[in-house]
Amino acid sequence: MEFDFDRSITLLHATPLILQSWLDQLPLDWILSSEGEDTWSPFDVVGHLIHGEKTDWIPRTEIILSEGEGKKFEPFDRFAMFNESKGKTIHDLLSEFEDLRRQNIERLRSLHITETDFDKTGVHPDLGVVTLRQLISTWVAHDLDHLGQIAGVMARQYKEEVGPWREYLGILET
Amino acid sequence: MEFDFDRSITLLHATPLILQSWLDQLPLDWILSSEGEDTWSPFDVVGHLIHGEKTDWIPRTEIILSEGEGKKFEPFDRFAMFNESKGKTIHDLLSEFEDLRRQNIERLRSLHITETDFDKTGVHPDLGVVTLRQLISTWVAHDLDHLGQIAGVMARQYKEEVGPWREYLGILET
Repeated sequence: MEFDFDRSITLLHATPLILQSWLDQLPLDWILSSEGEDTWSPFDVVGHLIHGEKTDWIPRTEIILSEGEGKKFEPFDRFAMFNESKGKTIHDLLSEFEDLRRQNIERLRSLHITETDFDKTGVHPDLGVVTLRQLISTWVAHDLDHLGQIAGVMARQYKEEVGPWREYLGILET
Repeated sequence: MEFDFDRSITLLHATPLILQSWLDQLPLDWILSSEGEDTWSPFDVVGHLIHGEKTDWIPRTEIILSEGEGKKFEPFDRFAMFNESKGKTIHDLLSEFEDLRRQNIERLRSLHITETDFDKTGVHPDLGVVTLRQLISTWVAHDLDHLGQIAGVMARQYKEEVGPWREYLGILET
């Protein structure tokens, strides 16, 4: 499927409500359980998405659309949420994410991006030259990646409890 | 994490709203796109979940809790939705799933299942003897498996569009 701006926005717009429907009423055991060291709980994932809204997608879009030289992105801190989410509830994080995402979609629309703009480029600190089309596609795929991650970490809490059905549920093995 | 009935119900209860938040406003391209033959679109997945509500989870719970001999389950048809969803919209399917799930949770609560009941067994046509605890755990993990599947099939529509970011997004490779 080819990149489409409006289609991409429908998903970016849906994600906060998907997460609220999923996580806002769940018992804390499920919200806070990861799969051990170096794995993330649903709580961690929402904090990570918040950090992306603050420091990644829109700032990088603005760098690409700027007239400056170099156009190099700041590195993204994938672990910032371990500090930033401290003392917050999942409800706090879900509201914060919803607010930030709404503001960012408004900002994105206000830029009146043209077809030509999507081919403009910036420089990722590790990946090199990337286009605005790739950045916005990645924003969408990144949301979906983390929705899949939440499904996985939650499902695998019941890895033993499902007994012999385990072999039918691919998500338990990944 | 050990099986817990109330915790399980919170997730079973959340799934229809998660799916509505996710799919009800998305463009059809995304709803109907699979990854080719023998793969499922989000539309197919919702139809499959509906068929489970009708023929799998509650009927099998009732067999396990019955006093009959043998207590063998009917085989579950994993492909029934290809016929049953014909002519329906995603909105139809999401509403139907919400109704069925609500009724099934009411039915589950009305059974006043005790701790001893969770150890009662039935016979799966392929897996053999399974407990009620395993059946309900599987109901939950099966929801999550299919939420993960929807995230995956949607994300992989943008596999090429993300360019070099592909290597950072694990969901694109599975």
